[in-house]
Amino acid sequence: MSIADTSNPRMNAHALLQARYGAEAVPPVGRLNEMLHGLFAHRTVRAYLPDALPQGTLGTLVAAAQSAASSSNLQLWSVIAVEDPGRKSRLAQVTGGQVHIEQAPLLLVWLADLSRADRMAAARSCTMEGSHYLESFVVAAIDAALAAQNAVVAAESMGLGTCYIGALRNDPERVAAELGLPPRAMAVFGMCVGREDPSHPTEIKPRLPQTVVCFRERYVPQREMEQVAEYDKTVAAFSREQGMGDVSWSDRVFARLGSYKGLYGRERMRAAMKALGFELR
Amino acid sequence: MSIADTSNPRMNAHALLQARYGAEAVPPVGRLNEMLHGLFAHRTVRAYLPDALPQGTLGTLVAAAQSAASSSNLQLWSVIAVEDPGRKSRLAQVTGGQVHIEQAPLLLVWLADLSRADRMAAARSCTMEGSHYLESFVVAAIDAALAAQNAVVAAESMGLGTCYIGALRNDPERVAAELGLPPRAMAVFGMCVGREDPSHPTEIKPRLPQTVVCFRERYVPQREMEQVAEYDKTVAAFSREQGMGDVSWSDRVFARLGSYKGLYGRERMRAAMKALGFELR
Repeated sequence: MSIADTSNPRMNAHALLQARYGAEAVPPVGRLNEMLHGLFAHRTVRAYLPDALPQGTLGTLVAAAQSAASSSNLQLWSVIAVEDPGRKSRLAQVTGGQVHIEQAPLLLVWLADLSRADRMAAARSCTMEGSHYLESFVVAAIDAALAAQNAVVAAESMGLGTCYIGALRNDPERVAAELGLPPRAMAVFGMCVGREDPSHPTEIKPRLPQTVVCFRERYVPQREMEQVAEYDKTVAAFSREQGMGDVSWSDRVFARLGSYKGLYGRERMRAAMKALGFELR
Repeated sequence: MSIADTSNPRMNAHALLQARYGAEAVPPVGRLNEMLHGLFAHRTVRAYLPDALPQGTLGTLVAAAQSAASSSNLQLWSVIAVEDPGRKSRLAQVTGGQVHIEQAPLLLVWLADLSRADRMAAARSCTMEGSHYLESFVVAAIDAALAAQNAVVAAESMGLGTCYIGALRNDPERVAAELGLPPRAMAVFGMCVGREDPSHPTEIKPRLPQTVVCFRERYVPQREMEQVAEYDKTVAAFSREQGMGDVSWSDRVFARLGSYKGLYGRERMRAAMKALGFELR
């Protein structure tokens, strides 16, 4: 599919939506623009060239990240830019050996970070009682995600590819030790950034129909399991094309969530977070 | 500041970064483009015109949202589009009366949604053991945030304004009842979407310097509290200009997190989530 190269953005965006939803389930959309085209064109990149990033890339990505909304402007996240090959390699071990972490010139590690608030409290000789509740960790994780997604959009606009690395949560304590994190800072995910290796291109991943994930006024699923069964076939066909085996979406969801074993250590997350100083009251 | 209207994107983006960081702390960035300009120009909008949204807006926003990455493609989020004035008004009550929820023609409520996996499990007469761990809720909340942020970028590209509504978490059970949520679906935040009322414009919010939130290789803050003290002055001046009182950033952080009372009911979130069926093992 050479959908990324045509010159008519309107047509092009429609092709992107077809790739996302299938020809029969393209949702009604209004007038499209370059920005929407960029969003619709997202693909996760798992094969990178070793090329250095353009000057100013990190500053640009962080500026985009900080431009995202922040709950009550608390700014409870931080980011660590890892370029050292040895450190990337050690972090890749935490993820079960995702080689793209070593390939990509830059690994951004996004932190839910309550430690800055602690240092502010220490400077005033008081405490941040509210930050010890589950709510505050959730705010920090969500704000880190909003920031990171802006960085993804920014990177793609610069011709770079990205890949989120949730598997850093397989062992939060080891990641914290590697990055020298203070108590109450935790890596919620990583993100590879680099130039896609054109010899290993990836395609747009099909998603569930909008009618499965979006409701009006109240949560009333309609024909949900029939639509999931259709999507199962779509994903199986896509997987086959990508050389990843003939596995349906439902089978993938079960492999991941059917047993705690599919969490690859993340079933320990609550204990790991406690060890890192998160009470989650 | 009429920074949104000049015709030279390069100059314009620089002005946006000055508004974000102050003239002295503009980070080094590379070549800018329209997409980056759009990201840097983000402002939260809290005053809306009653105008109907353009045809296809919801489909476009959800297509952008579904174009964001999803952990293992699990798609553990859903969204409810609320346009009914009575329902918006009742949801606004949960937030302590944020009138912009009633003003905006559309309120999107973003859900961390493990219930679809439950229905898939029921159809196979088995369980989703892994989904009962804290990890799975964190995945769902983060993926909802990635999706929502793409919707924000999309909305702004269409000339619309947005405002995240974290205060829906003040009372998750009441929100769940209002929206008819099944067990194990929870509203993680709302989002107003509409046309900004030009008689109540908002400005770009200044953020912490990049040197406070971004580290290289390891977490080593430098001159952190001095930089926070400078930023405190910036925020106080900005607040004064916006008619929101002469309050520093640190004071705002303490007001929110210094005591559990600043959480406005969200200190109950763990109990509320348990009532909604989230074990968070």
